[in-house]
Amino acid sequence: MNTTQTAPLAINRLNIHQVTLNQCNFRESIECLSRHGIRETAVWLPRLEETGVAEAGRILRDNGIVATSVCAGGLLTSAGNAEGSIVLDRNRRWLEQAAEIGATSMVTITGGLPEGVRDLDSMRAQALERLAALIPDARSAGVRLALEPLHPIVCGFRSVISTLGEALDALGQLESDDVMGIAFDSYALWWEVSLEEKIRRTAPHLLCVHVSDWLQDTSDVRLDRGMPGDGLIDNRRIRGWLEQAGFSGSIEVEIFSERNWWKRPPDEVVETIIDRSRQHL
Amino acid sequence: MNTTQTAPLAINRLNIHQVTLNQCNFRESIECLSRHGIRETAVWLPRLEETGVAEAGRILRDNGIVATSVCAGGLLTSAGNAEGSIVLDRNRRWLEQAAEIGATSMVTITGGLPEGVRDLDSMRAQALERLAALIPDARSAGVRLALEPLHPIVCGFRSVISTLGEALDALGQLESDDVMGIAFDSYALWWEVSLEEKIRRTAPHLLCVHVSDWLQDTSDVRLDRGMPGDGLIDNRRIRGWLEQAGFSGSIEVEIFSERNWWKRPPDEVVETIIDRSRQHL
Repeated sequence: MNTTQTAPLAINRLNIHQVTLNQCNFRESIECLSRHGIRETAVWLPRLEETGVAEAGRILRDNGIVATSVCAGGLLTSAGNAEGSIVLDRNRRWLEQAAEIGATSMVTITGGLPEGVRDLDSMRAQALERLAALIPDARSAGVRLALEPLHPIVCGFRSVISTLGEALDALGQLESDDVMGIAFDSYALWWEVSLEEKIRRTAPHLLCVHVSDWLQDTSDVRLDRGMPGDGLIDNRRIRGWLEQAGFSGSIEVEIFSERNWWKRPPDEVVETIIDRSRQHL
Repeated sequence: MNTTQTAPLAINRLNIHQVTLNQCNFRESIECLSRHGIRETAVWLPRLEETGVAEAGRILRDNGIVATSVCAGGLLTSAGNAEGSIVLDRNRRWLEQAAEIGATSMVTITGGLPEGVRDLDSMRAQALERLAALIPDARSAGVRLALEPLHPIVCGFRSVISTLGEALDALGQLESDDVMGIAFDSYALWWEVSLEEKIRRTAPHLLCVHVSDWLQDTSDVRLDRGMPGDGLIDNRRIRGWLEQAGFSGSIEVEIFSERNWWKRPPDEVVETIIDRSRQHL
């Protein structure tokens, strides 16, 4: 499709992920978003845990910000089976916290290869077993699990599920579409061949859409994402594909940027995102 | 399969890629390999061009080293069509050089996104057109094109083809199995799901097998590969899959390592590879 057919993103569909303002504490980031007319965020779990759900909920309400999801739960893999109950208990706590602040989904990544383990297949199987074990808890919390495939660059330490196809296969196996879906991240998936067709298959399962940009000279495997427009990803075209496939939800700008955006004043970051959204989202 | 069933690699199947000794000039690297009983290498094209084919051929013969391939040709993509003839002429020269030193294949990567281009599909189409145009030249040179999918981490600047499936699809479209095949690189492909099954489909087309290791703390998207045994890739298991699928060729250790192995004495590097091959290849 011709990308010029996709209109700029309306401001009320622009969600800014809390981790994008990682230079701020919980309150500072939410107040900053509110100041610039942003109405939605994805709450970063480490920030939520340090602030406490009661206080976090108050800050969100006082500033008129909706937490659409919490991010990132899961991290399910471990070298031994003994750790399974610790992993699951931690996720149950996150699901409860998500529910308490009104978030309807938890972005869920599988985790990578634990120290000393090189058997990807066994870790994939373990992650799926543990996801299955979480499903009743997610259902009773009223919080959906948004399974997020991550770029193969972090297969080793963040996610043994790397592609949309794998994530869809996992959903098929778990047969719990009422409480499970997909988090789509353009940074993780932009390189996939036949992406438009894969997006069509994913659309009925989409719970979250994250965007950022892949920098040509990226210097870190995880914490050097770019501002939309600064890199190689055609986010406007990808949004066109998502919308043609039926997606009409918000677009979450999620930028991990240790060397650049996390060092800047948060107001400048949010203003830049709003500005870039006109041309690039 | 049980990886313990795969016997250690015989030394006469151990090929060390010339770029692994990038601290050396052409002669130094070939003499070093010869000193340690290595009989095969993949010749690094920039080294070949700086040395000249006549001199390079002499050095190889004098040291009893066979050049199984040259690496890396292709780099086919460009922003405009005008550059197409330059790209093709450069590849024709490389094919002739390969033939002159007796190499039977040229590892061929597509190239990435040229400056200012974000349309992956059009670059994939362009790369395939240019590959098609090279086929008669490869045939007349008697040098096969070994199409190498690279890790999505370098989709932006080295290869718009990232997976075995895409490479096999390209081969299917080009219908030139007499003169085209696949270069398999464990560093590029270790994260792929159902890798064993994909290897079975790839086996009839395999021209080269490259191995190295993915470091947990990798610090560069291209030049920080690890020595087998130092990272996350189970190269022994992957070789088992390759052999069960019918592959019996040599295993090429190809380590780009700006921060470590390229700084060490070449004899130490080769000794380490031979030592590691006993347990990890």
